[in-house]
Amino acid sequence: MTDAQLDPPSRMLMGPGPSDVPPRVLAALGAPTVGHLDPYYLEVMDDTRRLLQATFRTENTLTMPMSATGMAGMETCIVNLVEPGDHVLIGVNGVFGERMCDVAGRAGATVHRIEAEWGETFTPQQIEDALRAHPEVRLVGVVHAETSTGAHQPLEELGAVAHARDALLVVDAVTSLAGAPVDIDAWGVDACYSGTQKCISCPPGLSPVTFGERALARMDARRTKSQSWYLDLSMIRAYWGEARAYHHTAPVNMTYALREALRLVHEEGLEARFARHRLHHGALRAGLEALGLSYVPKRSLPMLNCVRVPDGVDDAGVRRALLVDHGIEIGGGLGPFKGRAWRIGLMGASCTRRHVTALLGALGPLLGADAGAALRAADEAYRAG
Amino acid sequence: MTDAQLDPPSRMLMGPGPSDVPPRVLAALGAPTVGHLDPYYLEVMDDTRRLLQATFRTENTLTMPMSATGMAGMETCIVNLVEPGDHVLIGVNGVFGERMCDVAGRAGATVHRIEAEWGETFTPQQIEDALRAHPEVRLVGVVHAETSTGAHQPLEELGAVAHARDALLVVDAVTSLAGAPVDIDAWGVDACYSGTQKCISCPPGLSPVTFGERALARMDARRTKSQSWYLDLSMIRAYWGEARAYHHTAPVNMTYALREALRLVHEEGLEARFARHRLHHGALRAGLEALGLSYVPKRSLPMLNCVRVPDGVDDAGVRRALLVDHGIEIGGGLGPFKGRAWRIGLMGASCTRRHVTALLGALGPLLGADAGAALRAADEAYRAG
Repeated sequence: MTDAQLDPPSRMLMGPGPSDVPPRVLAALGAPTVGHLDPYYLEVMDDTRRLLQATFRTENTLTMPMSATGMAGMETCIVNLVEPGDHVLIGVNGVFGERMCDVAGRAGATVHRIEAEWGETFTPQQIEDALRAHPEVRLVGVVHAETSTGAHQPLEELGAVAHARDALLVVDAVTSLAGAPVDIDAWGVDACYSGTQKCISCPPGLSPVTFGERALARMDARRTKSQSWYLDLSMIRAYWGEARAYHHTAPVNMTYALREALRLVHEEGLEARFARHRLHHGALRAGLEALGLSYVPKRSLPMLNCVRVPDGVDDAGVRRALLVDHGIEIGGGLGPFKGRAWRIGLMGASCTRRHVTALLGALGPLLGADAGAALRAADEAYRAG
Repeated sequence: MTDAQLDPPSRMLMGPGPSDVPPRVLAALGAPTVGHLDPYYLEVMDDTRRLLQATFRTENTLTMPMSATGMAGMETCIVNLVEPGDHVLIGVNGVFGERMCDVAGRAGATVHRIEAEWGETFTPQQIEDALRAHPEVRLVGVVHAETSTGAHQPLEELGAVAHARDALLVVDAVTSLAGAPVDIDAWGVDACYSGTQKCISCPPGLSPVTFGERALARMDARRTKSQSWYLDLSMIRAYWGEARAYHHTAPVNMTYALREALRLVHEEGLEARFARHRLHHGALRAGLEALGLSYVPKRSLPMLNCVRVPDGVDDAGVRRALLVDHGIEIGGGLGPFKGRAWRIGLMGASCTRRHVTALLGALGPLLGADAGAALRAADEAYRAG
């Protein structure tokens, strides 16, 4: 067995998630467990829903965390909104669009792919053209924050484009929520899922989701049961609704932690939080570019900085030295970017000046580059605001 | 939003789960988060697997917690071991057997039900007869611990019965694991799932599962992908295996907590833990019967005591008084037992003499019965051992 006392090492989490978790959130996580039908827990659920609505900027009643990690949020959207034989259009410009195709195919959908180079994004015109070419499509899936490439997909016009063709718009906001605007109602997003371990800075374990009126109507008109019992919103709605009908046993302590992390989000304020992410991204970018690194995406996310590993540099060796010698975690590349890209997170509590400074200071010497110049470049970016 | 500081009330959790969580487990839960690919977390995963193997009493390599609650464990077994058109036989004697039918049906199975009265269990002969009547069946699902009725299904002979007909045996041990023997290898159980919030006394959020050689062979021979991406073991095996191939972001802190809860299980020792559950069950039963209450099942689980609500007693009122006045949670009935049964848990850290005494002392006056006599009956049971 194991006699070893749990003793996690001290880390600065600057990968693609999890991000650093604030002490208040860890304390909430470790608060005494109550029953999942306890009146106190019902209050915690209500608070969490209200805080999530504010975070997603939506009035959607069906807004809550699914009892599993972010990828289960993707599957929740698909298995509730797609029936066998339905046609869907998925934007594929990285790992997570690819996954959405896989998930939709398993749900029996006929999947139409619209593809862009990894690191690129889609224009509304491209989506519109694809919908015109496939008029039978009833659901469009896009990734707001492609965590595999750092690309930031504009969403403002996509709701109108999808709705004009009687299709729902489903959005992956796992990495962006609470770090950049995700305006569900203003943008006409019909269903959206996220994770807790990115810009919300709660440990991984839950997947916040939100579903609007069009999505509810689609669910109500289903001819078949959702293929997943665990993710079936027709039952989970009753568990999170007035009826409080037993479905599964909710992860009580994770809900405590999410509630506390969301309180921190709104104590700071969404706009201030977005500005903080932009500020430190700008400084990090200036510093990384001074080190000779180049960004993969044209439109970079602020919270996820995907840069090319320079020729001749030992990807794994650099990441290992950052972790072992400095206690700093950054992420490697996924799929075709394996060994060729680094993914540097500035998410939630991991988005501070200290994180930017520590990373540039550690990375410079490992690349044989001038850390001083990088830190000066970052400093200038901070002065410029 | 909410300005209210998280402040859960003090409870004695004696419902069908969650059970009381020991301080060491809460402390582990709130330990600093590290990355899910951090070498330290990989050690935590290995420890957890080893501890779970010992708890399930199995050598199965494919033993780990799924990243969702117990019901996702049920779905994991079904969606990985069943393909559309497969015939399955499910034992239905309560809510959870009923659910297994629902889950299997959603996976495209042809479901054959073998039914027993709620509170009854199945004999090996009954299962064998059903398999003879349906020779096309390739999977038998039974519930070891029917949490809706408190019935304790004997499993010793069912593996041989299923295997003689080339069927897999799948077992629901959500409520029994770590509180009563669950001997996966000795009993020839091919796949089993559990929860963390019952006799393991960890908060809800993960579902320990184990799969043996026959189950692996069935998965390897699949003609179709599992319908669930999130629960697809062909990918999760690589994440928990040597390859550490990224699948989803594991719930890091919940794994800390599960590891710590399992360390407590094995510090006590499984046999000692089972004996403790039998001891307090015997005393509680003596006390409840002295209060005039009768058990629903013929073969009662030690950790879940399902008794009839006496005629004329206000079910919800009694439970509310226990919760509000005494801080004691017990469970109500499910399905046809709604309003007609109480489910009293003695699980893990909630299985102590203090729990038995407090409940009998609180319940007696609420029923207008003699608590003194109940406590004397419990005391005699303790003396008898």
